[in-house]
Amino acid sequence: MASDSRPQPLTAGSPRVVVAGATGFAGALAAHLLWRHPGFELLAVTGRSQVGRRLDDLYPRYRVPLEIQELDLDRLGEIDAAVVAYPHAAAAPTVGELREHGARVVDLSADFRLGSLSAYEQWYGAHPRPDLMAEAVYGLTELHRSRIAGAAIVANPGCYPTASLLALAPLARAGLIADLVIDAKQGISGAGRVFDETTHLSIAGENIVPYKVAAHRHTPEIEEQLALAAGGEARGADTLAVQFQAHLVPLDEGELVSCYVTPTRTVAGSELRELYADAYAGEPFVEVVEEPPGVREVRETNYCRVFAAADQHTGKIIAFGALDNLWKGTSSQAVQNLNVMFGAPETAGLA
Amino acid sequence: MASDSRPQPLTAGSPRVVVAGATGFAGALAAHLLWRHPGFELLAVTGRSQVGRRLDDLYPRYRVPLEIQELDLDRLGEIDAAVVAYPHAAAAPTVGELREHGARVVDLSADFRLGSLSAYEQWYGAHPRPDLMAEAVYGLTELHRSRIAGAAIVANPGCYPTASLLALAPLARAGLIADLVIDAKQGISGAGRVFDETTHLSIAGENIVPYKVAAHRHTPEIEEQLALAAGGEARGADTLAVQFQAHLVPLDEGELVSCYVTPTRTVAGSELRELYADAYAGEPFVEVVEEPPGVREVRETNYCRVFAAADQHTGKIIAFGALDNLWKGTSSQAVQNLNVMFGAPETAGLA
Amino acid sequence: MASDSRPQPLTAGSPRVVVAGATGFAGALAAHLLWRHPGFELLAVTGRSQVGRRLDDLYPRYRVPLEIQELDLDRLGEIDAAVVAYPHAAAAPTVGELREHGARVVDLSADFRLGSLSAYEQWYGAHPRPDLMAEAVYGLTELHRSRIAGAAIVANPGCYPTASLLALAPLARAGLIADLVIDAKQGISGAGRVFDETTHLSIAGENIVPYKVAAHRHTPEIEEQLALAAGGEARGADTLAVQFQAHLVPLDEGELVSCYVTPTRTVAGSELRELYADAYAGEPFVEVVEEPPGVREVRETNYCRVFAAADQHTGKIIAFGALDNLWKGTSSQAVQNLNVMFGAPETAGLA
Amino acid sequence: MASDSRPQPLTAGSPRVVVAGATGFAGALAAHLLWRHPGFELLAVTGRSQVGRRLDDLYPRYRVPLEIQELDLDRLGEIDAAVVAYPHAAAAPTVGELREHGARVVDLSADFRLGSLSAYEQWYGAHPRPDLMAEAVYGLTELHRSRIAGAAIVANPGCYPTASLLALAPLARAGLIADLVIDAKQGISGAGRVFDETTHLSIAGENIVPYKVAAHRHTPEIEEQLALAAGGEARGADTLAVQFQAHLVPLDEGELVSCYVTPTRTVAGSELRELYADAYAGEPFVEVVEEPPGVREVRETNYCRVFAAADQHTGKIIAFGALDNLWKGTSSQAVQNLNVMFGAPETAGLA
Repeated sequence: MASDSRPQPLTAGSPRVVVAGATGFAGALAAHLLWRHPGFELLAVTGRSQVGRRLDDLYPRYRVPLEIQELDLDRLGEIDAAVVAYPHAAAAPTVGELREHGARVVDLSADFRLGSLSAYEQWYGAHPRPDLMAEAVYGLTELHRSRIAGAAIVANPGCYPTASLLALAPLARAGLIADLVIDAKQGISGAGRVFDETTHLSIAGENIVPYKVAAHRHTPEIEEQLALAAGGEARGADTLAVQFQAHLVPLDEGELVSCYVTPTRTVAGSELRELYADAYAGEPFVEVVEEPPGVREVRETNYCRVFAAADQHTGKIIAFGALDNLWKGTSSQAVQNLNVMFGAPETAGLA
Repeated sequence: MASDSRPQPLTAGSPRVVVAGATGFAGALAAHLLWRHPGFELLAVTGRSQVGRRLDDLYPRYRVPLEIQELDLDRLGEIDAAVVAYPHAAAAPTVGELREHGARVVDLSADFRLGSLSAYEQWYGAHPRPDLMAEAVYGLTELHRSRIAGAAIVANPGCYPTASLLALAPLARAGLIADLVIDAKQGISGAGRVFDETTHLSIAGENIVPYKVAAHRHTPEIEEQLALAAGGEARGADTLAVQFQAHLVPLDEGELVSCYVTPTRTVAGSELRELYADAYAGEPFVEVVEEPPGVREVRETNYCRVFAAADQHTGKIIAFGALDNLWKGTSSQAVQNLNVMFGAPETAGLA
Repeated sequence: MASDSRPQPLTAGSPRVVVAGATGFAGALAAHLLWRHPGFELLAVTGRSQVGRRLDDLYPRYRVPLEIQELDLDRLGEIDAAVVAYPHAAAAPTVGELREHGARVVDLSADFRLGSLSAYEQWYGAHPRPDLMAEAVYGLTELHRSRIAGAAIVANPGCYPTASLLALAPLARAGLIADLVIDAKQGISGAGRVFDETTHLSIAGENIVPYKVAAHRHTPEIEEQLALAAGGEARGADTLAVQFQAHLVPLDEGELVSCYVTPTRTVAGSELRELYADAYAGEPFVEVVEEPPGVREVRETNYCRVFAAADQHTGKIIAFGALDNLWKGTSSQAVQNLNVMFGAPETAGLA
Repeated sequence: MASDSRPQPLTAGSPRVVVAGATGFAGALAAHLLWRHPGFELLAVTGRSQVGRRLDDLYPRYRVPLEIQELDLDRLGEIDAAVVAYPHAAAAPTVGELREHGARVVDLSADFRLGSLSAYEQWYGAHPRPDLMAEAVYGLTELHRSRIAGAAIVANPGCYPTASLLALAPLARAGLIADLVIDAKQGISGAGRVFDETTHLSIAGENIVPYKVAAHRHTPEIEEQLALAAGGEARGADTLAVQFQAHLVPLDEGELVSCYVTPTRTVAGSELRELYADAYAGEPFVEVVEEPPGVREVRETNYCRVFAAADQHTGKIIAFGALDNLWKGTSSQAVQNLNVMFGAPETAGLA
């Protein structure tokens, strides 16, 4: 069977990292990326199920030859960093334990994404560790890079907010968004390692299905960050109410958001092009493209492609964001954040 | 090889019908449906290519054992009806010849869909037969049934307008649409029997691709019909400019439109339900459903499923329309129209 | 919602039929076909789960507006026929009850497919109702039509045996099979309404997976029937041991068997063509084709396409059989058998 | 747009490599791999069409920011190595020019795969450069590593032979193959950048299609190499005639061969396991697995997974080989060969 294919000898003193919750799609991919990463030592992969099974048995393609173990901080010894891939509400207590153990954490759940506790409570219920909210930084690397560098807890964004915010941030900063509809399409991997009608190939295949109509939890995350990008507060009286709608389409990995913006004033195409070029000049993982992007162009990469156009017929702006929901939408962005947090080149292990 | 599987003996005197342009996806399906139809005699299938080849060689699954021939009206003799499945601009002259030959025509192209000649010229260029526009009726059966019954030319709607208008007509009639964004997703069959990067499985598969950004020809068709449904003229000064955006997603047949309506006034969910129930009571092919519809539910049927919900967070209304782009979106709606035109039960050959 | 779309008024006195186990893929499709069938009255659909739910809620596309109920023979009253879609071993007792209630049964399980009790016990364990084996007829319509007509219990074949036997029967009858390898490929619907790694689109998609290596339960069924076709006994000392191997490939419905025959003597292509043409002349649902068939050609139909060629390089014969595993491979063949059993036209409700 | 994402600074004096024919799937992937390779300098990508277009416009996901140019050896200057991705017969003359220019060549075509000129002529017609055949080595790395190291021309194997030979070599060497059937399944990428019915998602999707029945050009390549592995000559009187049959299945990349071996003597499972373990001990890219492999496990990697089992029922051996047809089946194996030829670590740029 596959032997250790770790490509480079580890630097002595590489940060030691644990992936907690490696049995799901997001945690397994994070483990895959960190196992091959030249600048981190993947110490352990843990799970709440499948304990004792090897991760490369559960995810053969990822080829991580480690046994899934229970999360036992005493046994693991010193840990510099952790990626927590637990469901919402289950994550926060573990993030707390890891913090108290001395690790800096990238949390893939929604537990620390919102600045507003009341917004969290409205969408998710009681927060298990509200005391930690203050030390969490929202982990959309391109928007909060400098604060991420010093953060103890990084709240990795949802995949929909990542695509939406990268597509919209240039407009938000310019104060151009008066009204906003986001129509999002995602592959079935977005449903995770869940076995039901949502993911059965003979039901999800040859299908297009809208879900969570008028009730998607990613809405407040997008609203807060757009407000911040616009220079306001995360949640003020004048925060824009965003219309967000998600759909499952029959592919594996890939996500496209189509954003329909009613602008605050008329915007010419040339101004749009400048806004986006300026916003993302020098960004290693955002590609401003000249044609509407397809998700295949970014599959299994940490890239997000954005494209915006002005529609003269309606006066609206259409902005697209395309990424791989498991990569830039989740796990490779977590690695990008770890790179920033630990001073590695931002593209290390990702390009 | 497949022998004649025509299920019922034809009634003496069944209308004799020709499918012109049977080599494309739409024409071939129309031929399939008419070959099995208890109330029509499929006299011939014609094509501008593939002449001499049998249609069941080109489309094995459709099992129509007729040879593709050139369209030669003299040889065909008396024709009562024709389905014309030609590209835009190529269709109109043939529609004209068939009319002059005495046939009533369902035209699948865009040539006779618009009431406004100037709108046609703006999107498609010069119209080959503007003289025939007056005798054409827009063939969305549910909206124009009585006029279709007596029409000489029925302009079969585009698949996107069919889904959009069925999803939106109840709102338009009630004067509820102040602003409108339509985000449409369609399977690859929508690209037709075209062989290029758009349809190659290794490029179109595992992909989601927006196309014709800010420039989709279906827009004026939707705008005209919404204006008419609202009780106005097809194209007046106050016609709503509709934001329409199409995407290709990796399945074969199926289409979903997600319509985001900024309403003219606040609308409660109960009022919405009533509006839709009333609008489609007794309609054999429109199903008002209680959950957002997936396109698999209507695959290879003439059904369109519609669903609407009010979003209290944004005040907007979201309306969905799901259909099979080749069936209710094109060819089975053509048969539905033929049924209406020739006095057959509307569901004949379709349920 | 969809109202009753039953296309034809039922003939007074149509046989009353029940589908037991309508919640799985096979039972649901049988219910769909019988609901629309001009010659049967679908009295009830039953399930061991989902009781009280409507079948058109569980399978929207099939549009059978009946509530799933428990199988209660007293309440159902007189039943003429039943389709039993239970797993192996669970089926036989229910088949017995239905027989005792007076119904003629088409059983979709393997319980009555084998003539040899010992072969059954070897592959499936103890047989719950060996006493009924004698009155069961193997339901491959094309091979046993006359006995099916009078049968009390019809053991509907497995999908793999159906495709394999139709592809091979002409060779078996001619005594041409000296050695045989069958490589079978099937879509994910073959795994049924099962929710696990086998069916998850993000695991089964973009995959090709062999399963049950050197241990497939369909082997004895094929071996017995080939022996019978060759004029021998179902299981004699000289029964050919068949190498059968199944694979799951990423589509929904469809199955292809590729059969590699070492012939007992050299066979010319012309002889092959004659053998197959003769074997299937007049068969309404077997299409002998001139090119290797793709499964799309038979999707959602009761057709099986067969094709055979002699390979001059190796001296072997390659024979293909293509069908839809849920249709001719299971449920539409059950309806074909019901047609034969009750004297309806064999193609009724199927073409 | 994506800037240069070349991960490592090139070692001074890295071999300079050209990909000739980079517009097809195989050439483009070779360019992608070499662009990111730490040990080669990708000097140019050439094409016979699309000249002047950037390769990352044609293949966005591969992100090779080079312009496609005509192959002009004078302009390119010194070249150490070339990958030629031309069709059969077109390749040999270009291979010859490159040789004369001093480059060592990995040829992806079939032009130099066969040892026997007469076999080549039988399957492909006249050979354009028979004079070069003597200096070509068959490039299945695991079978001919030491000769590849010194070769001037490496004939990269076909994808089917690669999977088949890796699955069968341990049996061939042990003299165990008396008769052999290979049933191969491949994704649509195997058809290449070809736009026709073979690759249209609405025709190839939801389909399984056998092709080239009793006439596949990969047969002689497999036969020669099996004979050599068995210790005989490439093409002797007693060379085994192999039954090979290919099928297209609806995925993008991935290939599985299922090999049915009638053994020369009875072989126990334990002996099989030992044979395979011994054969591939230390091989970095062949994984002998304990369950039948799915192609997803090796997607977009240079790994080939093999598995063999003895079937007690039939006495046959079933051996599977799974790989990615574009990677280990073609382009990443070419890079593996370049690594061997130029003394780089065999896994460089591939793990």
